[in-house]
Amino acid sequence: MRFSIQKDYLVKGVQEVMKAVSLRTTIPILTGIKISVNEEGVSLTGSDSDISIESFIPIEENGKEIVEVHQAGSIVLQAKYFSEIVKKLPRETVEIEVESHFMTKIKSGKSEFNLNGLDPEEYPLLPQIEEHHVFQIPTDLLKHMIRQTVFAVSTSETRPILTGVNWKVYNSELVCIATDSHRLALRKAKVSGRNVPEEFKANVVIPGKSLNELSKILDESEEAVDIVITDYQVLFRTKHLLFFSRLLEGSYPDTSRLIPTESKTDIFVNTKEFLQAIDRASLLARDGRNNVVRFSTLEQRMIEISSNSPEIGKVVEEVQCEQIEGEDLKISFSAKYMMDALKALDSSEIKISFTGAMRPFLIRTANDDSIIQLILPVRTY
Amino acid sequence: MRFSIQKDYLVKGVQEVMKAVSLRTTIPILTGIKISVNEEGVSLTGSDSDISIESFIPIEENGKEIVEVHQAGSIVLQAKYFSEIVKKLPRETVEIEVESHFMTKIKSGKSEFNLNGLDPEEYPLLPQIEEHHVFQIPTDLLKHMIRQTVFAVSTSETRPILTGVNWKVYNSELVCIATDSHRLALRKAKVSGRNVPEEFKANVVIPGKSLNELSKILDESEEAVDIVITDYQVLFRTKHLLFFSRLLEGSYPDTSRLIPTESKTDIFVNTKEFLQAIDRASLLARDGRNNVVRFSTLEQRMIEISSNSPEIGKVVEEVQCEQIEGEDLKISFSAKYMMDALKALDSSEIKISFTGAMRPFLIRTANDDSIIQLILPVRTY
Repeated sequence: MRFSIQKDYLVKGVQEVMKAVSLRTTIPILTGIKISVNEEGVSLTGSDSDISIESFIPIEENGKEIVEVHQAGSIVLQAKYFSEIVKKLPRETVEIEVESHFMTKIKSGKSEFNLNGLDPEEYPLLPQIEEHHVFQIPTDLLKHMIRQTVFAVSTSETRPILTGVNWKVYNSELVCIATDSHRLALRKAKVSGRNVPEEFKANVVIPGKSLNELSKILDESEEAVDIVITDYQVLFRTKHLLFFSRLLEGSYPDTSRLIPTESKTDIFVNTKEFLQAIDRASLLARDGRNNVVRFSTLEQRMIEISSNSPEIGKVVEEVQCEQIEGEDLKISFSAKYMMDALKALDSSEIKISFTGAMRPFLIRTANDDSIIQLILPVRTY
Repeated sequence: MRFSIQKDYLVKGVQEVMKAVSLRTTIPILTGIKISVNEEGVSLTGSDSDISIESFIPIEENGKEIVEVHQAGSIVLQAKYFSEIVKKLPRETVEIEVESHFMTKIKSGKSEFNLNGLDPEEYPLLPQIEEHHVFQIPTDLLKHMIRQTVFAVSTSETRPILTGVNWKVYNSELVCIATDSHRLALRKAKVSGRNVPEEFKANVVIPGKSLNELSKILDESEEAVDIVITDYQVLFRTKHLLFFSRLLEGSYPDTSRLIPTESKTDIFVNTKEFLQAIDRASLLARDGRNNVVRFSTLEQRMIEISSNSPEIGKVVEEVQCEQIEGEDLKISFSAKYMMDALKALDSSEIKISFTGAMRPFLIRTANDDSIIQLILPVRTY
C-alpha cells in the first residue's frame, strides 16, 4: 500500500472513526484504525464492536485532487498514535507507505514516522446489511430527534433495555421514545422511504451511547441520512460515512398507556423564566433528597417553586404564568428532570398538563404534538 | 447587617475570593466566604489558610452607586451555595440581610433565599502585615514572571522547598527561580520600591500554587501591584484586592553554580519549527522512557531530533537552523521539559548553549539575559 493524501481530509476522517475506537478494549486489533486504499479512494475504519464507523475519502472532490494512489492495499495502525501523528504533521501533504512486516512509513516534509502496523486480515469485517428498506431523514432533524430523547435513557444497567432509545417505524412515521422509568421523552416525525411498502413496520432499540456518538459525528445540514434497520444492526449512511450500531436485544416496554390523555390543571409559562426559577430553587437541593423541588399554584396566575434543606437553608421562587387552567395543585418533582425536559423542548412558551399530585405530568410546546416530555412526580413527606 | 448591591460586582468579588476557598478543608468555617459591610463598602474574604484573598467593593465607583448600606455588620456564608446563588439571581440588584441566628436572606426580584450563616467571629483574622518596605511591579510583568518560572517547580513533596519559587530582591532587582532538580527557570526584572533602602535584601520561597492562583486572579493590565514581603507572609495588593500567601520554610538551594558560564556548541533556531518537531518526535515516547528525545547536529546547519520506542515505532525529524557554532553534539533530553521551556521564552528565535552531552544546557532568547531556561540531559544507553 502506498498513497499520498491531503492532510486536512485525513485528519477529519481519522477524527470521525476515532469516535468508535475504544483504547481500553480487550480485543487488540480494535485499538487500531484500518486504512484501505483502492483506485476510488481511502477508507478508514474504527470499531469498538458495538459501534463501527467507516469514513471514505475519494480520490478527488469538486475537481480537487485529494488522494494519489500508487499501490492499493490495507493496514491497521494504532489509533492512539496515528491520530496524534496526523494532526501534528508539518505539511499539507502526507505520504503513507506499508513496507515489510506491516511496518508503515508516514512522511510529511522533513518529518518521518515508522509505525509498527497490524495485519489488516485480522480486522473484523463490517456487518453486511441487506438494503431492502431504506429510510431517509434530514441530518438536522435526525440530530434534533436524538437530542430531544436520548438524555432520558437509563444510566443504570439494572434494566439494560432502558439504556437504549426505542425507534418505531409505522405508516411512514418514526417515533423515538426513551425512558428511565422516572421520566419519558417522545419525539416523532415523518420519514420518507425508498422501496418501503406502506405496511412496513420496525420496532428496535438503539443504544443511547450509539446515538450520542452518531449525533456528534453528523454535521448540521439538511442533507438526508439513509437509515437501514435490520434485526441486529442499524446503519446510518451519509455521503462519505457509514455508521453501524448494534441493537439492544429484548422487548421495549409498552409506554403508550403511561401517557395521560386528559388533564386537570394546565399551566402556560415562559420557558426561560420557569427554567431559571427551577434552576435556582434546586441549588440548595442538589446534595440531598435527589434534587426535588416543590411546585404550587398561587392566586393571580402565579406559581411558587420552593425547596428546603434544613441544614443549608430554603428558597422560594415566584413565577408569573401566561395562564393557569383548572384545579389548584401542589406537586413535587425532580428539578433535574424538569430542566432536561425544558431544554429538550426548544420552545419559548410551554404547556404543562397535570392530572393530580401523584400522577405523571406532561410538558409540551403549545401547538406541537410531535414532542412530549413526561415526568413522574416525587412523593414528599 | 443589611445592604443591597449590584449583582455583577458581587459575582466578580465572589469569584475572586473563591480562588482561595477549599471546599475540602477540615476547618468548617473556611468553607465559607466572610462578608463584612461598613460605610465604605463590602469586603469579601476567602481563605484556605495557605492563601487568603480579600476583595473590596466600594460604595461607589466613577460616580456609579454600587452598594447601599442600611446596616453595617458581617456574616459567613457557605461558599459552595453562596457562589452558585449569586451567579444565578434574576435581577441586577441583590439585597442581603442577616436576621436572627445568622439566618441570612438573599433577595433579587421574586427570588428569595434563606441561608444558614456562620458566626463571623469564628472566621480567622487576616495576617497583620507591617508595611515597612513596599515594592511595585506592573501587573502584566508580574504575570509574565510567574508564568515563565512557576511551571518548573517540583510537583513532588520529597523536597517541599522545591514546590515553591525562590524570590530574591537585591539592588532593586527581583529574581525568580524555580527548579525541580531536572530543570530550572530563572527570570529577573527591575522593581521599584517605596521607603526601600538600597541595601534591602529579601530571599523567600513562595508556594507555586499561590503564584498560580495569584496569576489567575490578576487582570492583564499595566497597573502596579504592591508587594510586601515579611518573614512568614507575602502580600500582593491591587486597587481592590488583597492576596496573602504563606511562605515556605527552609532555605532554597543555591542554584547559581548550576548555570554554566561558557558553552561548546551554540544553536540558533526558529522556536516554532523546533517546538513542533520536538512535539512530534515525542509522540511515540510519551508512555515509556520518560518522554526522552535524541538531538544531534548534522551537516549544513541541520539538526535531527529522533525517538524510538521498539514496540510502537520510530520517528526522525530534521530542522533547519539559523546557525550552529562550535562542536558537533549528540544529546538526549526530556521533550516535555524542552517544550515547557520554549513556551516560556516568548520569542520567535532562540539560542541553545551546550557544554557537552552530560552537562546542563541553556535555552535563551538571542539578546535578552533576563530569562534563562536550563535543562539537565538524560543519559541514554
